[in-house]
Amino acid sequence: MIKKSLSEIIQPIEIELSEFNKLFKKSLKSKVTLLELITRYIHKQKGKKIRPLLVLLSSKLSGGINERSFRGASLVELLHTATLIHDDVVDNAETRRGFPSINAVWKNKIAVLLGDYFLARGLMLAVDGKDFDFLSVITNTVRRMSEGELLQINKTRKLNIDEETYFRIISDKTASLLSTCCEIGARASTDNEEIIGSMRMFGENLGIAFQIRDDILDFIGTKKVFGKPLGGDIKEKKITLPLIYALKEAPEEERKSILRSIKKGAGNAEVDEVISFVKKYDGINYADSIAKEYTNRAVNNLKIFEESDSRTSLESLVAFVVERKN
Amino acid sequence: MIKKSLSEIIQPIEIELSEFNKLFKKSLKSKVTLLELITRYIHKQKGKKIRPLLVLLSSKLSGGINERSFRGASLVELLHTATLIHDDVVDNAETRRGFPSINAVWKNKIAVLLGDYFLARGLMLAVDGKDFDFLSVITNTVRRMSEGELLQINKTRKLNIDEETYFRIISDKTASLLSTCCEIGARASTDNEEIIGSMRMFGENLGIAFQIRDDILDFIGTKKVFGKPLGGDIKEKKITLPLIYALKEAPEEERKSILRSIKKGAGNAEVDEVISFVKKYDGINYADSIAKEYTNRAVNNLKIFEESDSRTSLESLVAFVVERKN
Repeated sequence: MIKKSLSEIIQPIEIELSEFNKLFKKSLKSKVTLLELITRYIHKQKGKKIRPLLVLLSSKLSGGINERSFRGASLVELLHTATLIHDDVVDNAETRRGFPSINAVWKNKIAVLLGDYFLARGLMLAVDGKDFDFLSVITNTVRRMSEGELLQINKTRKLNIDEETYFRIISDKTASLLSTCCEIGARASTDNEEIIGSMRMFGENLGIAFQIRDDILDFIGTKKVFGKPLGGDIKEKKITLPLIYALKEAPEEERKSILRSIKKGAGNAEVDEVISFVKKYDGINYADSIAKEYTNRAVNNLKIFEESDSRTSLESLVAFVVERKN
Repeated sequence: MIKKSLSEIIQPIEIELSEFNKLFKKSLKSKVTLLELITRYIHKQKGKKIRPLLVLLSSKLSGGINERSFRGASLVELLHTATLIHDDVVDNAETRRGFPSINAVWKNKIAVLLGDYFLARGLMLAVDGKDFDFLSVITNTVRRMSEGELLQINKTRKLNIDEETYFRIISDKTASLLSTCCEIGARASTDNEEIIGSMRMFGENLGIAFQIRDDILDFIGTKKVFGKPLGGDIKEKKITLPLIYALKEAPEEERKSILRSIKKGAGNAEVDEVISFVKKYDGINYADSIAKEYTNRAVNNLKIFEESDSRTSLESLVAFVVERKN
């Protein structure tokens, strides 16, 4: 029975998640008043905390939540916070979760240092807890995330991304962190490599489905109050799966004309043109079908576990991801 | 007998340093062409490699250079490269070592990601080599460096820095990395905590002397072809030791007037005014005497070792640091 809301999904670890929230806040205390100020600003925004949720659910399913699970959850949330802050500098974003972004309020200067600081604090948690297995996973993830984004920027300039490159990019920049959450959650509770491998793959497949859905929403989403507007990727010349497929299916002439529109810097008229083009050549349905394939894989990765409330929560999270409208 | 030039200082580890250079280049290979391109650009600039030099000399002095010493040297150089790239974003710097900075050529976007990438690559070296002792030292250093810079920004805005805060800032933002170089070099070769502690303190004292000298040069340096111009700190409202002392010594009236000049945003006339003020109240001599105190401490930290070519090189490096003219 699939759970329909995030509050139902959270149920098996509700107490632990609120325990985590307390610990997490405490772990960010600093003697530097500017840091205290910014940290409080970030807490006020209350993100969905999907990553700690993944760690704790994976940990519960793999053997039970313990002290290491909490450290793992804090570690990934700190890393996630660090990358969001750096991403907002990278993208020149002015808002985040409906609040002005850190770079908008405190300038790039502070945002860059703050990201480094949060990353270091996260790594220190693992060092202090002697969670060397976490460190190995997490440092590789930091490398993959930055390398994935750099690859995307590199390819975006040339407007040539094939499906293989697309998957490499989204696997590195998005799926790697979700995969790490699930792997760390499992490692906190077991040393059974089959379980750890299954949870890692679950996270990877979930992450890929998540990013494809995100990319689809750029073409079919409704205008959002918060978050990026429809066609944002097109304006930034990011070529994602729906468009890659349409470009492959379209006749040479039309293909070239669309690429010219994107290249010259799309305004609203060009965005509409590209969206119609993608729909005409079935790019949305194709991307949808691929996303479903990855969600099926993710659900299958959980089959090694007996049915349980935690397993249902993770299955529901998969459904939640691909059905979301924003 | 103090060595007068960097090439003499390098002597005891000349072969190892060139071995390091080869390994370091190799360790940065990437499949992403943009990364290859930027990495080659950085190699072309040939920094002085003071930090790997410190690691290798410390290692040689503490027991002998081995595989871990090389990994330690690569680790600190990668971390240093990462922080330089991020610092140039933080400072909006347009040049670095006489070349256009990464952010100037490839924009902030790429510079932020690249810094993260180099940091991750460095940490991965330690993870792969199972140098967990290095990881513990290095993550704390990343925290200290970012926290130190954030503290400086925080205080700069308010124009109120006392001597205690000044030392906290320079210890965190500058001395921590030099201290880490020496500690990691020692740890690579010995588990004798007395030796490790002495090398750590040597690096810390060297780093503090280095930064005080750097801050003095802002008042008495000659205009440089490369690097920051005379009075750069004053224009950025950074209050450093010579000025802190002069402000303490001057009568209330004059003190207020100087602070007003700095606050309103110093042009060349105000810079000259501040420099004269600092000289009048003996700020340069005071800072000089403090720097000397720290270099004496550093040289004393080496007294636990027998005399040797490596010890002489480290002693000479200390002299080199406080006598440098730019």
